[in-house]
Amino acid sequence: MKFEVTILGSSSSTPIFNRNPSAQLLNVNEKYILIDCGEATQNQLLNFGLKANRIDQIFISHLHGDHYLGLVGLLSSLHLNGRTKPMDIFGPAELKEIIDLQFKHSQTTLRYPINFKPTADNNRYRIFESYDVVVDSFPLDHRIPCTGFLFTEKQRLRKMIKSKIEDLSIPSDMIALIKKGQNFTDKKGKVHSAEELTTEADQPKTYAYCSDTICSWKYLEYISNVDMLYHEATFMNDMLERAEETFHTTALQAGKIALKANVKKLLVGHFSARYRELEPILEEAKSVFPETLLAVEGQTFQI
Amino acid sequence: MKFEVTILGSSSSTPIFNRNPSAQLLNVNEKYILIDCGEATQNQLLNFGLKANRIDQIFISHLHGDHYLGLVGLLSSLHLNGRTKPMDIFGPAELKEIIDLQFKHSQTTLRYPINFKPTADNNRYRIFESYDVVVDSFPLDHRIPCTGFLFTEKQRLRKMIKSKIEDLSIPSDMIALIKKGQNFTDKKGKVHSAEELTTEADQPKTYAYCSDTICSWKYLEYISNVDMLYHEATFMNDMLERAEETFHTTALQAGKIALKANVKKLLVGHFSARYRELEPILEEAKSVFPETLLAVEGQTFQI
Repeated sequence: MKFEVTILGSSSSTPIFNRNPSAQLLNVNEKYILIDCGEATQNQLLNFGLKANRIDQIFISHLHGDHYLGLVGLLSSLHLNGRTKPMDIFGPAELKEIIDLQFKHSQTTLRYPINFKPTADNNRYRIFESYDVVVDSFPLDHRIPCTGFLFTEKQRLRKMIKSKIEDLSIPSDMIALIKKGQNFTDKKGKVHSAEELTTEADQPKTYAYCSDTICSWKYLEYISNVDMLYHEATFMNDMLERAEETFHTTALQAGKIALKANVKKLLVGHFSARYRELEPILEEAKSVFPETLLAVEGQTFQI
Repeated sequence: MKFEVTILGSSSSTPIFNRNPSAQLLNVNEKYILIDCGEATQNQLLNFGLKANRIDQIFISHLHGDHYLGLVGLLSSLHLNGRTKPMDIFGPAELKEIIDLQFKHSQTTLRYPINFKPTADNNRYRIFESYDVVVDSFPLDHRIPCTGFLFTEKQRLRKMIKSKIEDLSIPSDMIALIKKGQNFTDKKGKVHSAEELTTEADQPKTYAYCSDTICSWKYLEYISNVDMLYHEATFMNDMLERAEETFHTTALQAGKIALKANVKKLLVGHFSARYRELEPILEEAKSVFPETLLAVEGQTFQI
């Protein structure tokens, strides 16, 4: 099952050095989820050949423009391109007001329904669940209300032992049922248990998205042991004071959080406009957490 | 005196084929004026090496997203980059509400003042005047209130006859005064009139911006005899019915308007996403008005 994230924007605040403001596309079993939607996210989807209409859920972390200003444009384009299926949007309650006001003044009635569900930044709770994934929202610590998101794959099915299919002449339409736990009776009338025909399923994978936030241990419990943590690293540690003033994190701090949360991999992004080169940011995070990667635009990371 | 326009966006509705939604940068005597501000206009300014902070006036034609969704992002970036000088914004009254709501929820207090002046779409009137240019707003005929803008250079100064400077030993600090009409007394006490030392000034140039609108003769009087007319040409004429339904213009109609308005040059843009190639649009407009140009992004046109 596919569970991967493509970076559409990795810049903080403003577009610069060909970096766009925050946006990521999560592919969960070939279903698309958008996380944040900075200005020109729809251009980035076009640039990377990703079909916007495959997105069915959008999660917005907070209402700083670099995390949502591309939303109304994206929603408009989907409307103009004939979308009819619903779109789920999760974000601060005020986002609804912002969307509604703009469609009111453009006199636009979307051809498709928007299911808007406000996030709350005071607690962890389950905000979305589908056949493939569950999503939890949890509070971050930024200048304005901001939430992180934890994406957890649903329990996968057990894996069929291929040799058994031939040995017992198992019909193909039985395979999915056996994976789900149904026993199989062969031609001779012998019953084979689902357990003996399959091996254990892969563990469900987890992806946590933390942007924007000051470095804090408060949200550590929500991101513990995830397979991949995306964490903002707006500044390097020589700018620690500035990071604290603006409620952002340094690359060194992001590494420390990853270490302390015992995550498998760390992906850093939300880079300040002051950094043309990103390697020093990567090196700083790696100095405490070697399994760090740079959120480079257009790159896809397997979770 | 410089009077030229650079195309930042020429697409209607959605970004496509590397075309962005509407935006143009007018350079009037090295002062920048932005006309419309579709999503990712700030990216386009960066792409073409044009300094956003040199913009002091922004004119927004109407509140369809493809004409203004880049505005809040641009204003935010100017704030973050330390702008302190005021910004004049002209557009439908509701635009103020849209800007204010977004800065309220992002808890942003801009470091610079915005002077917002609402446009009215029921009459022609003078909306802005500076040392270099006057701007008139006039009604267009679109699905929602929409105005066109007429930019007229201020009367230029008379031109100094270069040989007279040497012949009469005219000091350099006198030249500007003579151009403005002051007579000059030479060393022998002889008075030379400003008229005899100068030749007539160039005629002030005019640029009209008409997007979006259904083809109509109602606004013809406002654009008559301009040096350059930018007119939308969303569709080709085989889509006339669709153009009328959506209150847009075809390339053929844009050519007819240019002809009837007796303009010197026509610049067509706001191309529908259905057209990958633009040459047929150009040819259609040229079939009635040969002095037609395509609004291609990144290109600068002398007015």
